[in-house]
Amino acid sequence: MEAKNLDRSFEKIDEYWAPRVICSIEDFYLKIAKISGEFTWHTHENEDELFIIHRGQMVLEIEDEKVGLKQGDVFLVQKGKRHRPVAKEECEIILLEKKTTAHTGDVVTAHTRSIEDQLRSI
Amino acid sequence: MEAKNLDRSFEKIDEYWAPRVICSIEDFYLKIAKISGEFTWHTHENEDELFIIHRGQMVLEIEDEKVGLKQGDVFLVQKGKRHRPVAKEECEIILLEKKTTAHTGDVVTAHTRSIEDQLRSI
Repeated sequence: MEAKNLDRSFEKIDEYWAPRVICSIEDFYLKIAKISGEFTWHTHENEDELFIIHRGQMVLEIEDEKVGLKQGDVFLVQKGKRHRPVAKEECEIILLEKKTTAHTGDVVTAHTRSIEDQLRSI
Repeated sequence: MEAKNLDRSFEKIDEYWAPRVICSIEDFYLKIAKISGEFTWHTHENEDELFIIHRGQMVLEIEDEKVGLKQGDVFLVQKGKRHRPVAKEECEIILLEKKTTAHTGDVVTAHTRSIEDQLRSI
């Protein structure tokens, strides 16, 4: 593997809610995404999901709770917790997810991206 | 879990080469460390190790190769590859490691930190 740079990779993303895989480690993917607006409510029944805020701020709505996250914040959404990210303005996030994690979990919507889409070179 | 902030956590680190666990996800730990100088040559026979440069720059010496890394760079050291990080000046790094990964791999030196030490709250 060659080094990849997060800032250079974020610059190449021209679509919201479309994660791209930066690298693979064991059974996990490190992904990046630009987000803006409200995502789909969904649940990953069997996989924890780690969010790291690279730039900007967002709110993780998790069941009845709202967790405000800003640049540099790290937050784990536990498996089985229904959630959706919401960002008033563009926000750049880093995700650590099991390779088995479906983008929109238990639902399929217009937001849903296949793993093949996410694996396109960036 | 509450959100943790990488910058606030780095501010609390007052020792080089002493990783601290930020959070656990499945069988991995996300860790942070401040580094300066030359680390111990070592190998993780069974675990890949992911480096993300949070601030500063460093060189990963991997067998006969030297990989220069700067802020925002992501690099995977593959299992079985003998390596050591070197930083001319203070550098802040994020590490993603299996929970089974020993700090200095196959050797024990003055650098070696136990997992209990790394798990102290930060």
